[in-house]
Amino acid sequence: MKKLVIFGVGLIGGSVALALKKANQYAPHIVGVGRGESSLKIALDLGVIDEASDNIEQALKGADMVLIATPVAQTPEILRAIKPHLTTSTIITDAGSTKSDVLSYAHNILGNLSAQFVGGHPIAGAEKSGVSAANSELFLNKNVVLTPTDETQLNAINAVQEMWQTCGAKVTNMTASSHDSIFAAVSHLPHLLAFALVNDLATRPNADQLFDFAASGFRDFTRIAGSSPEMWRDISLANKTALLSELSTYQAEVSNLKTMLENEDAASLQALFERASLARNAWAKSNENK
Amino acid sequence: MKKLVIFGVGLIGGSVALALKKANQYAPHIVGVGRGESSLKIALDLGVIDEASDNIEQALKGADMVLIATPVAQTPEILRAIKPHLTTSTIITDAGSTKSDVLSYAHNILGNLSAQFVGGHPIAGAEKSGVSAANSELFLNKNVVLTPTDETQLNAINAVQEMWQTCGAKVTNMTASSHDSIFAAVSHLPHLLAFALVNDLATRPNADQLFDFAASGFRDFTRIAGSSPEMWRDISLANKTALLSELSTYQAEVSNLKTMLENEDAASLQALFERASLARNAWAKSNENK
Repeated sequence: MKKLVIFGVGLIGGSVALALKKANQYAPHIVGVGRGESSLKIALDLGVIDEASDNIEQALKGADMVLIATPVAQTPEILRAIKPHLTTSTIITDAGSTKSDVLSYAHNILGNLSAQFVGGHPIAGAEKSGVSAANSELFLNKNVVLTPTDETQLNAINAVQEMWQTCGAKVTNMTASSHDSIFAAVSHLPHLLAFALVNDLATRPNADQLFDFAASGFRDFTRIAGSSPEMWRDISLANKTALLSELSTYQAEVSNLKTMLENEDAASLQALFERASLARNAWAKSNENK
Repeated sequence: MKKLVIFGVGLIGGSVALALKKANQYAPHIVGVGRGESSLKIALDLGVIDEASDNIEQALKGADMVLIATPVAQTPEILRAIKPHLTTSTIITDAGSTKSDVLSYAHNILGNLSAQFVGGHPIAGAEKSGVSAANSELFLNKNVVLTPTDETQLNAINAVQEMWQTCGAKVTNMTASSHDSIFAAVSHLPHLLAFALVNDLATRPNADQLFDFAASGFRDFTRIAGSSPEMWRDISLANKTALLSELSTYQAEVSNLKTMLENEDAASLQALFERASLARNAWAKSNENK
Protein backbone atom coordinates (compact mmCIF):
# COMPACT_ATOMS: atom_id res chain seq x y z
CA MET A 1 0.00 0.00 0.00
CA LYS A 2 1.39 3.38 -1.04
CA LYS A 3 -1.24 5.83 0.11
CA LEU A 4 -3.86 5.57 2.86
CA VAL A 5 -6.48 8.23 3.51
CA ILE A 6 -7.95 8.25 7.02
CA PHE A 7 -11.18 10.08 7.81
CA GLY A 8 -11.27 10.74 11.56
CA VAL A 9 -7.77 10.68 13.02
CA GLY A 10 -8.77 9.96 16.62
CA LEU A 11 -7.80 7.03 18.83
CA ILE A 12 -8.63 4.34 16.24
CA GLY A 13 -7.52 6.12 13.05
CA GLY A 14 -4.42 7.47 14.77
CA SER A 15 -3.45 4.07 16.18
CA VAL A 16 -3.80 2.44 12.74
CA ALA A 17 -1.53 5.15 11.31
CA LEU A 18 1.10 4.65 14.01
CA ALA A 19 1.02 0.86 13.71
CA LEU A 20 1.44 0.99 9.91
CA LYS A 21 4.29 3.50 10.19
CA LYS A 22 6.16 1.06 12.40
CA ALA A 23 5.87 -1.68 9.75
CA ASN A 24 8.65 -0.37 7.51
CA GLN A 25 8.10 -2.45 4.39
CA TYR A 26 4.40 -1.72 4.44
CA ALA A 27 4.28 1.89 5.65
CA PRO A 28 2.12 3.97 3.32
CA HIS A 29 1.93 7.74 2.93
CA ILE A 30 -0.88 8.66 5.30
CA VAL A 31 -3.26 11.55 4.73
CA GLY A 32 -5.62 12.58 7.50
CA VAL A 33 -8.93 14.21 6.57
CA GLY A 34 -11.23 15.74 9.11
CA ARG A 35 -13.36 18.64 10.19
CA GLY A 36 -11.65 19.12 13.55
CA GLU A 37 -8.73 21.21 12.26
CA SER A 38 -7.02 21.30 15.66
CA SER A 39 -7.02 17.52 16.08
CA LEU A 40 -5.59 17.08 12.55
CA LYS A 41 -2.88 19.59 13.46
CA ILE A 42 -2.07 17.61 16.61
CA ALA A 43 -1.91 14.41 14.52
CA LEU A 44 0.50 16.12 12.14
CA ASP A 45 2.62 17.55 14.97
CA LEU A 46 2.78 14.15 16.67
CA GLY A 47 3.90 12.57 13.40
CA VAL A 48 0.84 10.31 13.33
CA ILE A 49 -0.02 11.37 9.76
CA ASP A 50 2.19 12.64 6.93
CA GLU A 51 -0.29 15.14 5.58
CA ALA A 52 -3.51 16.83 6.71
CA SER A 53 -6.14 17.80 4.20
CA ASP A 54 -9.58 19.31 3.92
CA ASN A 55 -9.65 18.81 0.16
CA ILE A 56 -11.16 15.39 -0.50
CA GLU A 57 -10.38 15.35 -4.23
CA GLN A 58 -6.67 15.98 -3.64
CA ALA A 59 -6.52 13.67 -0.67
CA LEU A 60 -7.94 10.76 -2.64
CA LYS A 61 -5.68 11.23 -5.67
CA GLY A 62 -3.69 8.01 -6.02
CA ALA A 63 -5.06 6.58 -2.75
CA ASP A 64 -5.03 2.77 -2.45
CA MET A 65 -7.32 2.73 0.54
CA VAL A 66 -9.75 4.94 2.45
CA LEU A 67 -10.35 4.16 6.13
CA ILE A 68 -13.41 5.78 7.70
CA ALA A 69 -12.76 5.98 11.45
CA THR A 70 -15.24 8.71 12.40
CA PRO A 71 -18.39 8.18 14.51
CA VAL A 72 -20.68 5.94 12.42
CA ALA A 73 -23.27 8.71 12.04
CA GLN A 74 -20.83 10.56 9.75
CA THR A 75 -20.29 7.57 7.44
CA PRO A 76 -23.08 8.28 4.89
CA GLU A 77 -21.92 11.89 4.47
CA ILE A 78 -18.31 10.77 3.95
CA LEU A 79 -19.31 8.06 1.47
CA ARG A 80 -21.23 10.67 -0.54
CA ALA A 81 -18.28 13.06 -0.43
CA ILE A 82 -15.68 10.53 -1.56
CA LYS A 83 -17.75 8.75 -4.21
CA PRO A 84 -16.93 11.15 -7.11
CA HIS A 85 -13.21 10.75 -6.39
CA LEU A 86 -12.99 6.95 -6.10
CA THR A 87 -11.39 4.90 -8.89
CA THR A 88 -12.23 1.27 -9.65
CA SER A 89 -9.18 0.26 -7.63
CA THR A 90 -9.70 2.35 -4.46
CA ILE A 91 -10.50 0.12 -1.50
CA ILE A 92 -12.80 1.55 1.16
CA THR A 93 -13.23 0.27 4.71
CA ASP A 94 -14.49 1.51 8.07
CA ALA A 95 -14.09 0.93 11.80
CA GLY A 96 -17.64 1.34 13.07
CA SER A 97 -19.19 -0.64 15.93
CA THR A 98 -22.26 -1.70 13.94
CA LYS A 99 -22.09 -3.28 10.53
CA SER A 100 -25.50 -3.94 8.91
CA ASP A 101 -26.25 -0.22 8.83
CA VAL A 102 -22.83 0.62 7.37
CA LEU A 103 -23.14 -2.03 4.65
CA SER A 104 -26.51 -0.65 3.72
CA TYR A 105 -25.06 2.89 3.49
CA ALA A 106 -22.24 1.57 1.28
CA HIS A 107 -24.67 -0.32 -0.93
CA ASN A 108 -27.05 2.60 -1.34
CA ILE A 109 -24.47 5.34 -1.75
CA LEU A 110 -21.59 3.65 -3.55
CA GLY A 111 -23.66 1.52 -5.93
CA ASN A 112 -21.36 -0.74 -7.98
CA LEU A 113 -18.32 0.58 -6.14
CA SER A 114 -19.66 -1.02 -2.96
CA ALA A 115 -17.90 -4.22 -4.12
CA GLN A 116 -14.71 -2.36 -3.13
CA PHE A 117 -16.07 -1.62 0.36
CA VAL A 118 -15.22 -3.93 3.26
CA GLY A 119 -16.97 -3.31 6.58
CA GLY A 120 -14.66 -3.60 9.58
CA HIS A 121 -14.79 -3.39 13.39
CA PRO A 122 -11.64 -3.36 15.52
CA ILE A 123 -12.46 -4.52 19.08
CA ALA A 124 -10.21 -2.19 21.00
CA GLY A 125 -9.86 1.09 22.75
CA ALA A 126 -13.14 2.12 24.28
CA GLU A 127 -11.67 3.80 27.35
CA LYS A 128 -9.78 6.73 25.90
CA SER A 129 -10.41 8.86 22.86
CA GLY A 130 -8.61 11.37 20.69
CA VAL A 131 -5.40 11.20 18.68
CA SER A 132 -3.25 12.00 21.75
CA ALA A 133 -4.20 8.58 23.15
CA ALA A 134 -3.30 6.80 19.88
CA ASN A 135 -0.59 4.15 20.10
CA SER A 136 0.97 1.70 17.68
CA GLU A 137 0.15 -1.32 19.86
CA LEU A 138 -3.57 -0.67 20.39
CA PHE A 139 -4.56 -3.57 18.11
CA LEU A 140 -1.86 -6.05 19.13
CA ASN A 141 -3.58 -9.44 19.59
CA LYS A 142 -7.00 -7.75 19.50
CA ASN A 143 -9.88 -8.99 17.35
CA VAL A 144 -10.91 -7.23 14.17
CA VAL A 145 -14.12 -8.40 12.49
CA LEU A 146 -14.56 -7.89 8.73
CA THR A 147 -18.00 -8.26 7.17
CA PRO A 148 -17.58 -8.82 3.42
CA THR A 149 -20.63 -9.79 1.35
CA ASP A 150 -20.92 -12.14 -1.64
CA GLU A 151 -20.30 -9.14 -3.89
CA THR A 152 -17.15 -7.89 -2.15
CA GLN A 153 -14.00 -8.12 -4.30
CA LEU A 154 -11.50 -10.63 -2.99
CA ASN A 155 -8.55 -8.24 -3.42
CA ALA A 156 -10.38 -5.68 -1.26
CA ILE A 157 -10.94 -8.24 1.50
CA ASN A 158 -7.29 -9.30 1.33
CA ALA A 159 -5.99 -5.73 1.41
CA VAL A 160 -8.06 -4.75 4.45
CA GLN A 161 -7.13 -8.00 6.19
CA GLU A 162 -3.42 -7.37 5.50
CA MET A 163 -3.73 -3.83 6.83
CA TRP A 164 -5.18 -5.02 10.16
CA GLN A 165 -2.76 -7.94 10.45
CA THR A 166 0.08 -5.47 9.95
CA CYS A 167 -1.35 -3.66 13.00
CA GLY A 168 -1.00 -6.95 14.93
CA ALA A 169 -4.71 -7.81 15.02
CA LYS A 170 -6.45 -11.18 14.62
CA VAL A 171 -8.89 -10.86 11.72
CA THR A 172 -12.17 -12.81 11.53
CA ASN A 173 -14.67 -12.63 8.65
CA MET A 174 -18.40 -13.00 9.28
CA THR A 175 -21.69 -11.63 7.98
CA ALA A 176 -22.78 -8.18 9.15
CA SER A 177 -25.81 -9.79 10.72
CA SER A 178 -23.72 -12.27 12.77
CA HIS A 179 -21.47 -9.41 13.83
CA ASP A 180 -24.39 -7.33 15.00
CA SER A 181 -25.95 -10.24 16.93
CA ILE A 182 -22.70 -11.10 18.69
CA PHE A 183 -21.94 -7.52 19.68
CA ALA A 184 -25.52 -6.89 20.77
CA ALA A 185 -24.91 -9.65 23.33
CA VAL A 186 -21.35 -9.05 24.52
CA SER A 187 -21.08 -5.27 24.19
CA HIS A 188 -24.25 -3.33 23.43
CA LEU A 189 -26.39 -5.14 26.04
CA PRO A 190 -23.91 -4.61 28.93
CA HIS A 191 -23.59 -0.93 27.97
CA LEU A 192 -27.35 -0.39 28.10
CA LEU A 193 -27.60 -2.34 31.38
CA ALA A 194 -24.90 -0.18 32.96
CA PHE A 195 -26.53 3.05 31.73
CA ALA A 196 -29.87 1.76 33.10
CA LEU A 197 -28.43 1.00 36.54
CA VAL A 198 -26.76 4.39 36.95
CA ASN A 199 -29.85 6.19 35.66
CA ASP A 200 -32.03 4.17 38.04
CA LEU A 201 -29.91 5.20 41.06
CA ALA A 202 -29.07 8.76 39.94
CA THR A 203 -32.73 9.75 39.63
CA ARG A 204 -33.71 8.71 43.18
CA PRO A 205 -34.23 11.19 46.03
CA ASN A 206 -31.41 9.53 48.03
CA ALA A 207 -28.98 9.32 45.07
CA ASP A 208 -26.19 11.10 46.97
CA GLN A 209 -26.40 8.67 49.86
CA LEU A 210 -26.42 5.68 47.50
CA PHE A 211 -23.38 6.95 45.59
CA ASP A 212 -21.57 7.59 48.89
CA PHE A 213 -21.65 3.91 49.71
CA ALA A 214 -21.00 2.57 46.20
CA ALA A 215 -17.63 0.82 46.08
CA SER A 216 -15.34 -1.10 43.73
CA GLY A 217 -18.00 -3.54 42.46
CA PHE A 218 -20.18 -0.62 41.42
CA ARG A 219 -17.14 1.16 39.93
CA ASP A 220 -16.29 -1.68 37.55
CA PHE A 221 -19.89 -2.62 36.70
CA THR A 222 -20.68 0.96 35.72
CA ARG A 223 -17.41 1.98 34.05
CA ILE A 224 -19.00 1.63 30.60
CA ALA A 225 -21.88 3.89 31.69
CA GLY A 226 -19.33 6.71 31.46
CA SER A 227 -19.12 6.19 27.67
CA SER A 228 -20.23 8.72 25.06
CA PRO A 229 -24.03 9.21 25.10
CA GLU A 230 -24.10 10.21 21.40
CA MET A 231 -22.11 7.17 20.31
CA TRP A 232 -24.33 4.79 22.29
CA ARG A 233 -27.52 6.45 21.09
CA ASP A 234 -26.32 5.80 17.53
CA ILE A 235 -25.17 2.22 18.20
CA SER A 236 -28.45 1.36 19.98
CA LEU A 237 -30.56 2.68 17.14
CA ALA A 238 -28.35 1.13 14.45
CA ASN A 239 -28.54 -2.28 16.12
CA LYS A 240 -32.09 -1.90 17.39
CA THR A 241 -33.48 -5.31 16.40
CA ALA A 242 -30.69 -7.45 17.82
CA LEU A 243 -30.48 -5.29 20.92
CA LEU A 244 -34.23 -5.47 21.64
CA SER A 245 -34.01 -9.24 21.39
CA GLU A 246 -31.07 -9.27 23.83
CA LEU A 247 -32.92 -7.00 26.27
CA SER A 248 -35.92 -9.35 26.23
CA THR A 249 -33.76 -12.43 26.80
CA TYR A 250 -32.02 -10.65 29.66
CA GLN A 251 -35.31 -9.62 31.25
CA ALA A 252 -36.39 -13.27 31.21
CA GLU A 253 -33.09 -14.18 32.88
CA VAL A 254 -33.68 -11.57 35.61
CA SER A 255 -37.27 -12.78 36.09
CA ASN A 256 -35.93 -16.28 36.53
CA LEU A 257 -33.54 -15.03 39.23
CA LYS A 258 -36.40 -13.20 40.95
CA THR A 259 -38.47 -16.39 41.04
CA MET A 260 -35.58 -18.30 42.63
CA LEU A 261 -35.24 -15.57 45.23
CA GLU A 262 -38.99 -15.36 45.92
CA ASN A 263 -39.02 -19.14 46.45
CA GLU A 264 -35.84 -18.95 48.56
CA ASP A 265 -34.49 -21.62 46.23
CA ALA A 266 -30.94 -21.65 47.60
CA ALA A 267 -29.77 -24.57 45.45
CA SER A 268 -30.85 -22.99 42.14
CA LEU A 269 -29.41 -19.62 43.11
CA GLN A 270 -26.09 -21.18 44.00
CA ALA A 271 -26.08 -23.27 40.80
CA LEU A 272 -26.71 -20.17 38.66
CA PHE A 273 -24.04 -18.13 40.49
CA GLU A 274 -21.60 -21.05 40.13
CA ARG A 275 -22.17 -21.42 36.38
CA ALA A 276 -21.65 -17.69 35.96
CA SER A 277 -18.58 -17.42 38.16
CA LEU A 278 -16.91 -20.47 36.59
CA ALA A 279 -17.59 -19.12 33.09
CA ARG A 280 -16.44 -15.63 34.01
CA ASN A 281 -13.24 -16.73 35.68
CA ALA A 282 -12.40 -19.16 32.85
CA TRP A 283 -12.94 -16.33 30.36
CA ALA A 284 -10.72 -13.98 32.37
CA LYS A 285 -7.95 -16.58 32.53
CA SER A 286 -7.82 -17.09 28.77
CA ASN A 287 -8.34 -13.41 27.94
CA GLU A 288 -5.80 -11.75 30.18
CA ASN A 289 -4.78 -9.33 27.43
CA LYS A 290 -8.29 -7.88 27.11
CA MET B 1 -8.48 -2.23 74.13
CA LYS B 2 -6.25 -4.92 75.62
CA LYS B 3 -7.52 -8.11 74.02
CA LEU B 4 -9.37 -8.67 70.74
CA VAL B 5 -10.65 -12.06 69.61
CA ILE B 6 -11.19 -12.46 65.86
CA PHE B 7 -13.30 -15.27 64.44
CA GLY B 8 -12.30 -15.77 60.80
CA VAL B 9 -8.80 -14.42 60.18
CA GLY B 10 -9.16 -13.95 56.41
CA LEU B 11 -8.78 -10.79 54.34
CA ILE B 12 -11.06 -8.67 56.57
CA GLY B 13 -10.16 -10.08 59.98
CA GLY B 14 -6.47 -10.17 59.07
CA SER B 15 -6.45 -6.61 57.79
CA VAL B 16 -8.14 -5.35 60.97
CA ALA B 17 -5.46 -7.13 63.02
CA LEU B 18 -2.62 -5.65 60.94
CA ALA B 19 -4.09 -2.14 61.06
CA LEU B 20 -4.53 -2.26 64.86
CA LYS B 21 -1.00 -3.61 65.34
CA LYS B 22 0.34 -0.57 63.53
CA ALA B 23 -1.49 1.78 65.90
CA ASN B 24 0.96 1.45 68.78
CA GLN B 25 -0.97 3.10 71.58
CA TYR B 26 -4.07 1.11 70.74
CA ALA B 27 -2.63 -2.24 69.66
CA PRO B 28 -4.38 -5.05 71.57
CA HIS B 29 -3.33 -8.65 72.07
CA ILE B 30 -5.02 -10.42 69.17
CA VAL B 31 -6.30 -13.98 69.30
CA GLY B 32 -7.46 -15.67 66.11
CA VAL B 33 -10.09 -18.37 66.34
CA GLY B 34 -11.07 -20.53 63.40
CA ARG B 35 -11.75 -23.94 62.00
CA GLY B 36 -9.27 -23.64 59.14
CA GLU B 37 -6.20 -24.61 61.16
CA SER B 38 -3.83 -23.99 58.26
CA SER B 39 -5.04 -20.43 57.67
CA LEU B 40 -4.70 -19.67 61.40
CA LYS B 41 -1.16 -21.03 61.26
CA ILE B 42 -0.40 -18.76 58.27
CA ALA B 43 -1.85 -15.80 60.21
CA LEU B 44 0.40 -16.65 63.15
CA ASP B 45 3.47 -17.14 60.93
CA LEU B 46 2.82 -13.83 59.17
CA GLY B 47 2.53 -12.08 62.53
CA VAL B 48 -1.05 -11.06 61.81
CA ILE B 49 -2.26 -12.48 65.12
CA ASP B 50 -0.47 -13.00 68.43
CA GLU B 51 -2.16 -16.25 69.30
CA ALA B 52 -4.22 -18.92 67.55
CA SER B 53 -6.84 -20.84 69.44
CA ASP B 54 -9.50 -23.47 69.00
CA ASN B 55 -10.62 -23.17 72.62
CA ILE B 56 -13.32 -20.53 72.76
CA GLU B 57 -13.49 -20.36 76.55
CA GLN B 58 -9.77 -19.63 76.86
CA ALA B 59 -9.77 -17.31 73.89
CA LEU B 60 -12.52 -15.15 75.36
CA LYS B 61 -11.00 -14.94 78.85
CA GLY B 62 -10.38 -11.23 79.48
CA ALA B 63 -11.39 -10.24 75.94
CA ASP B 64 -12.62 -6.66 75.50
CA MET B 65 -14.02 -7.31 72.06
CA VAL B 66 -15.02 -10.16 69.76
CA LEU B 67 -15.01 -9.50 66.00
CA ILE B 68 -16.85 -12.03 63.85
CA ALA B 69 -15.35 -11.83 60.36
CA THR B 70 -16.42 -15.21 58.98
CA PRO B 71 -18.99 -15.74 56.20
CA VAL B 72 -22.33 -14.53 57.61
CA ALA B 73 -23.80 -18.04 57.52
CA GLN B 74 -21.46 -19.01 60.39
CA THR B 75 -22.54 -16.11 62.62
CA PRO B 76 -25.40 -17.85 64.50
CA GLU B 77 -23.19 -20.83 65.34
CA ILE B 78 -20.42 -18.55 66.60
CA LEU B 79 -22.84 -16.46 68.69
CA ARG B 80 -24.13 -19.66 70.31
CA ALA B 81 -20.59 -20.84 70.97
CA ILE B 82 -19.38 -17.61 72.55
CA LYS B 83 -22.48 -16.78 74.58
CA PRO B 84 -21.57 -18.85 77.69
CA HIS B 85 -18.15 -17.14 77.83
CA LEU B 86 -19.23 -13.50 77.44
CA THR B 87 -19.12 -11.15 80.42
CA THR B 88 -21.32 -8.07 80.80
CA SER B 89 -18.46 -5.98 79.47
CA THR B 90 -17.46 -7.98 76.37
CA ILE B 91 -18.30 -6.07 73.22
CA ILE B 92 -19.28 -8.11 70.17
CA THR B 93 -19.28 -6.93 66.56
CA ASP B 94 -19.25 -8.40 63.07
CA ALA B 95 -18.22 -7.57 59.49
CA GLY B 96 -21.03 -9.15 57.47
CA SER B 97 -22.48 -7.72 54.23
CA THR B 98 -26.09 -7.89 55.44
CA LYS B 99 -27.27 -6.47 58.74
CA SER B 100 -30.96 -7.12 59.49
CA ASP B 101 -30.36 -10.87 59.56
CA VAL B 102 -27.30 -10.51 61.80
CA LEU B 103 -29.13 -8.24 64.26
CA SER B 104 -31.92 -10.75 64.47
CA TYR B 105 -29.41 -13.57 65.17
CA ALA B 106 -27.82 -11.42 67.89
CA HIS B 107 -31.19 -10.58 69.44
CA ASN B 108 -32.43 -14.18 69.42
CA ILE B 109 -29.21 -15.85 70.52
CA LEU B 110 -27.59 -13.33 72.85
CA GLY B 111 -30.78 -12.16 74.60
CA ASN B 112 -29.95 -9.31 77.02
CA LEU B 113 -26.30 -9.41 75.97
CA SER B 114 -27.35 -8.27 72.48
CA ALA B 115 -27.13 -4.71 73.87
CA GLN B 116 -23.35 -5.29 73.74
CA PHE B 117 -23.53 -6.32 70.07
CA VAL B 118 -22.91 -3.74 67.32
CA GLY B 119 -23.52 -4.81 63.72
CA GLY B 120 -20.84 -3.60 61.31
CA HIS B 121 -20.01 -3.71 57.62
CA PRO B 122 -16.64 -2.55 56.26
CA ILE B 123 -16.99 -1.60 52.56
CA ALA B 124 -13.69 -2.94 51.31
CA GLY B 125 -11.85 -5.80 49.81
CA ALA B 126 -14.13 -7.86 47.64
CA GLU B 127 -11.50 -8.78 45.05
CA LYS B 128 -9.08 -10.92 47.02
CA SER B 129 -9.59 -13.25 49.92
CA GLY B 130 -7.58 -15.06 52.55
CA VAL B 131 -5.17 -13.87 55.21
CA SER B 132 -2.24 -13.74 52.74
CA ALA B 133 -3.99 -10.81 51.03
CA ALA B 134 -4.53 -8.96 54.33
CA ASN B 135 -2.93 -5.54 54.63
CA SER B 136 -2.93 -2.79 57.22
CA GLU B 137 -4.25 -0.17 54.78
CA LEU B 138 -7.28 -2.05 53.46
CA PHE B 139 -9.70 0.22 55.33
CA LEU B 140 -7.88 3.52 54.84
CA ASN B 141 -10.54 6.12 53.84
CA LYS B 142 -13.06 3.34 53.25
CA ASN B 143 -16.61 3.41 54.62
CA VAL B 144 -17.66 1.28 57.56
CA VAL B 145 -21.36 1.18 58.42
CA LEU B 146 -22.45 0.39 61.98
CA THR B 147 -26.05 -0.52 62.71
CA PRO B 148 -26.72 0.01 66.42
CA THR B 149 -30.30 -0.23 67.71
CA ASP B 150 -32.08 1.75 70.44
CA GLU B 151 -30.97 -0.93 72.90
CA THR B 152 -27.28 -0.94 72.00
CA GLN B 153 -24.99 0.29 74.78
CA LEU B 154 -23.30 3.58 73.97
CA ASN B 155 -19.90 2.35 75.15
CA ALA B 156 -20.17 -0.60 72.75
CA ILE B 157 -20.94 1.72 69.81
CA ASN B 158 -18.03 3.97 70.78
CA ALA B 159 -15.58 1.10 71.16
CA VAL B 160 -16.41 -0.42 67.76
CA GLN B 161 -16.31 3.00 66.15
CA GLU B 162 -12.89 3.68 67.69
CA MET B 163 -11.62 0.31 66.47
CA TRP B 164 -12.58 1.06 62.85
CA GLN B 165 -11.35 4.65 63.00
CA THR B 166 -8.03 3.32 64.23
CA CYS B 167 -7.98 1.25 61.01
CA GLY B 168 -8.37 4.53 59.06
CA ALA B 169 -12.03 4.03 58.12
CA LYS B 170 -14.89 6.54 57.96
CA VAL B 171 -17.65 5.29 60.24
CA THR B 172 -21.36 5.96 59.60
CA ASN B 173 -24.22 4.81 61.83
CA MET B 174 -27.60 3.88 60.37
CA THR B 175 -30.40 1.37 60.95
CA ALA B 176 -29.91 -2.18 59.71
CA SER B 177 -32.88 -1.69 57.44
CA SER B 178 -31.37 1.45 55.80
CA HIS B 179 -28.09 -0.38 55.39
CA ASP B 180 -29.73 -3.32 53.69
CA SER B 181 -31.75 -1.06 51.34
CA ILE B 182 -28.69 0.95 50.32
CA PHE B 183 -26.51 -2.08 49.68
CA ALA B 184 -29.30 -3.88 47.85
CA ALA B 185 -29.13 -0.99 45.36
CA VAL B 186 -25.41 -0.25 45.05
CA SER B 187 -23.93 -3.70 45.59
CA HIS B 188 -26.30 -6.66 45.68
CA LEU B 189 -28.28 -5.61 42.59
CA PRO B 190 -25.19 -5.12 40.36
CA HIS B 191 -23.82 -8.48 41.52
CA LEU B 192 -27.02 -10.29 40.56
CA LEU B 193 -27.21 -8.42 37.24
CA ALA B 194 -23.63 -9.43 36.41
CA PHE B 195 -24.26 -13.08 37.36
CA ALA B 196 -27.42 -12.99 35.21
CA LEU B 197 -25.59 -11.63 32.16
CA VAL B 198 -22.80 -14.20 32.28
CA ASN B 199 -25.27 -17.03 32.91
CA ASP B 200 -27.42 -15.80 30.00
CA LEU B 201 -24.44 -15.90 27.61
CA ALA B 202 -22.69 -18.98 29.03
CA THR B 203 -25.73 -21.21 28.54
CA ARG B 204 -26.17 -20.43 24.82
CA PRO B 205 -25.13 -22.81 22.03
CA ASN B 206 -22.71 -20.17 20.66
CA ALA B 207 -21.25 -19.25 24.07
CA ASP B 208 -17.66 -19.87 22.93
CA GLN B 209 -18.04 -17.54 19.97
CA LEU B 210 -19.63 -14.85 22.14
CA PHE B 211 -16.86 -15.05 24.75
CA ASP B 212 -14.24 -14.89 21.97
CA PHE B 213 -15.42 -11.42 21.02
CA ALA B 214 -16.10 -10.11 24.52
CA ALA B 215 -13.67 -7.29 25.32
CA SER B 216 -12.80 -4.80 28.06
CA GLY B 217 -16.35 -3.50 28.57
CA PHE B 218 -17.56 -7.04 29.23
CA ARG B 219 -14.52 -7.70 31.43
CA ASP B 220 -15.28 -4.84 33.82
CA PHE B 221 -19.06 -5.25 33.80
CA THR B 222 -18.76 -8.93 34.72
CA ARG B 223 -15.82 -8.81 37.13
CA ILE B 224 -18.16 -9.17 40.12
CA ALA B 225 -19.74 -12.25 38.49
CA GLY B 226 -16.49 -14.01 39.41
CA SER B 227 -17.35 -13.61 43.13
CA SER B 228 -18.05 -16.46 45.53
CA PRO B 229 -21.34 -18.26 44.64
CA GLU B 230 -21.90 -19.36 48.26
CA MET B 231 -21.39 -15.86 49.64
CA TRP B 232 -23.80 -14.34 47.13
CA ARG B 233 -26.38 -17.05 47.63
CA ASP B 234 -26.32 -16.17 51.34
CA ILE B 235 -26.39 -12.40 50.79
CA SER B 236 -29.26 -12.67 48.29
CA LEU B 237 -31.37 -14.77 50.63
CA ALA B 238 -30.51 -12.66 53.69
CA ASN B 239 -31.49 -9.46 51.88
CA LYS B 240 -34.30 -11.00 49.85
CA THR B 241 -36.98 -8.34 50.36
CA ALA B 242 -34.86 -5.29 49.51
CA LEU B 243 -33.22 -7.11 46.61
CA LEU B 244 -36.53 -8.23 45.07
CA SER B 245 -37.70 -4.64 45.21
CA GLU B 246 -34.47 -3.48 43.50
CA LEU B 247 -34.81 -6.14 40.80
CA SER B 248 -38.37 -5.00 40.07
CA THR B 249 -37.37 -1.34 39.86
CA TYR B 250 -34.50 -2.27 37.56
CA GLN B 251 -36.76 -4.32 35.30
CA ALA B 252 -39.03 -1.29 34.94
CA GLU B 253 -35.97 0.80 34.02
CA VAL B 254 -34.97 -1.74 31.35
CA SER B 255 -38.55 -1.85 30.01
CA ASN B 256 -38.45 1.92 29.75
CA LEU B 257 -35.23 1.71 27.72
CA LYS B 258 -36.80 -0.93 25.48
CA THR B 259 -39.76 1.33 24.79
CA MET B 260 -37.46 4.20 23.81
CA LEU B 261 -35.59 1.87 21.48
CA GLU B 262 -38.77 0.40 19.97
CA ASN B 263 -39.99 3.94 19.27
CA GLU B 264 -36.55 4.97 17.96
CA ASP B 265 -36.78 7.83 20.45
CA ALA B 266 -33.26 9.16 19.91
CA ALA B 267 -33.72 12.21 22.14
CA SER B 268 -34.90 10.22 25.17
CA LEU B 269 -32.18 7.60 24.70
CA GLN B 270 -29.52 10.27 24.54
CA ALA B 271 -30.97 12.09 27.56
CA LEU B 272 -30.94 8.87 29.61
CA PHE B 273 -27.38 7.98 28.54
CA GLU B 274 -26.27 11.53 29.32
CA ARG B 275 -27.78 11.53 32.82
CA ALA B 276 -26.09 8.20 33.49
CA SER B 277 -22.70 9.11 32.07
CA LEU B 278 -22.61 12.49 33.85
CA ALA B 279 -23.56 10.85 37.15
CA ARG B 280 -21.09 8.01 36.66
CA ASN B 281 -18.17 10.23 35.72
CA ALA B 282 -18.91 12.68 38.56
CA TRP B 283 -18.98 9.73 40.97
CA ALA B 284 -15.68 8.39 39.62
CA LYS B 285 -14.03 11.80 39.98
CA SER B 286 -14.94 12.18 43.64
CA ASN B 287 -14.32 8.52 44.50
CA GLU B 288 -10.92 7.93 42.98
CA ASN B 289 -9.78 5.91 45.98
CA LYS B 290 -12.56 3.33 45.56
